[in-house]
Amino acid sequence: MIKLYGSPLSSAGRCYWMLEELAVPYEVMPLNLREKEQKSEAFLKINPNGKIPAMIDGDFVLWESMAINSYLAKKFESPLAPKNLQEESLIQQWSLWGLVDFQEPAVSWMIQEFFVPAEHRNQLVIENSKKALPRVLEVLNRGLEGKTFLVGDRFTVADVNLGTVTDILLGLKYDLSAYPHIQRWMTELHSRPAYKKVAQMRQMPK
Amino acid sequence: MIKLYGSPLSSAGRCYWMLEELAVPYEVMPLNLREKEQKSEAFLKINPNGKIPAMIDGDFVLWESMAINSYLAKKFESPLAPKNLQEESLIQQWSLWGLVDFQEPAVSWMIQEFFVPAEHRNQLVIENSKKALPRVLEVLNRGLEGKTFLVGDRFTVADVNLGTVTDILLGLKYDLSAYPHIQRWMTELHSRPAYKKVAQMRQMPK
Repeated sequence: MIKLYGSPLSSAGRCYWMLEELAVPYEVMPLNLREKEQKSEAFLKINPNGKIPAMIDGDFVLWESMAINSYLAKKFESPLAPKNLQEESLIQQWSLWGLVDFQEPAVSWMIQEFFVPAEHRNQLVIENSKKALPRVLEVLNRGLEGKTFLVGDRFTVADVNLGTVTDILLGLKYDLSAYPHIQRWMTELHSRPAYKKVAQMRQMPK
Repeated sequence: MIKLYGSPLSSAGRCYWMLEELAVPYEVMPLNLREKEQKSEAFLKINPNGKIPAMIDGDFVLWESMAINSYLAKKFESPLAPKNLQEESLIQQWSLWGLVDFQEPAVSWMIQEFFVPAEHRNQLVIENSKKALPRVLEVLNRGLEGKTFLVGDRFTVADVNLGTVTDILLGLKYDLSAYPHIQRWMTELHSRPAYKKVAQMRQMPK
């Protein structure tokens, strides 16, 4: 059975979403972040970065949430997996872009907003994110123009990967009204039963 | 024929390296960065980010250098391509990690060092990179322990993608003596004829 480390509230959330889409059984591995168990010798053997998520399938260990999602979709021969090399490359393109250009400014802002006490907040980080995001959202909006999903005219790994980044902006109450294609796409993603199931998990008390 | 936008001195350098490894003919597309041609309407239709590299193969357009390299290796059935899903996932894992955890701090430092005039240099950015890199290099060093290459016991896309990030540290004269596996691996990479050819291109005047 697939073993997954990390809470649905973290970037592991996109792996939960993928697993729910696949409707395969999986086991959530306990990891006490408050006691820094992710930095323990035992966990560093799984992910040397001391970070979640990490996935174990038999004796195969994999980290990086977007790599895990690609693996899972292919392994379980899901319709979310690419059907050919061009689709695969576009999923990879959007995922790499999603991490660097999009998730980085969104997460930096979120950390300042929700995890740094007001007196230590770095306003410059927030300002830089606010400057970077409109350009990024313009690219995503353009990428979704005239399409229901990002790649291959159907819901794929790319939508799960990028959809979880866009959700960070919801948490920040970011005004997305200038990006109608993104808004339409998000409504589509949020209507999926697997998405709803993970959203429910995220609200559950530990 | 494969068309590539971007100079070998930029992050397109890793796509040049891949193309030289594949030994396939390719066409370098002219783009005048000084005149901001990457922001022109014509180029934004190719890469809406207004950035290099971008690749065109027939009517297929792809951006993100690491996605381009995966595409090229598979398209030309190179031994650098993954042989199975586990190898493919590990190449993706290292590439995603290489961009966010490793390239981001290395490039931020390089930009301050070489492109920002001394009086405007942001010392905090440099300090943050200096703090982040040892942890990152530890992970890479550990990932190369007892192995010649990163994935699959042979030279793959992962080595090209990560090797070009490590080279940024050479430009910064970063002391790598604490990371013997990285040093051995770099010597291996630098001995490849395709690498040498691109290194020569990088030194050529425009």
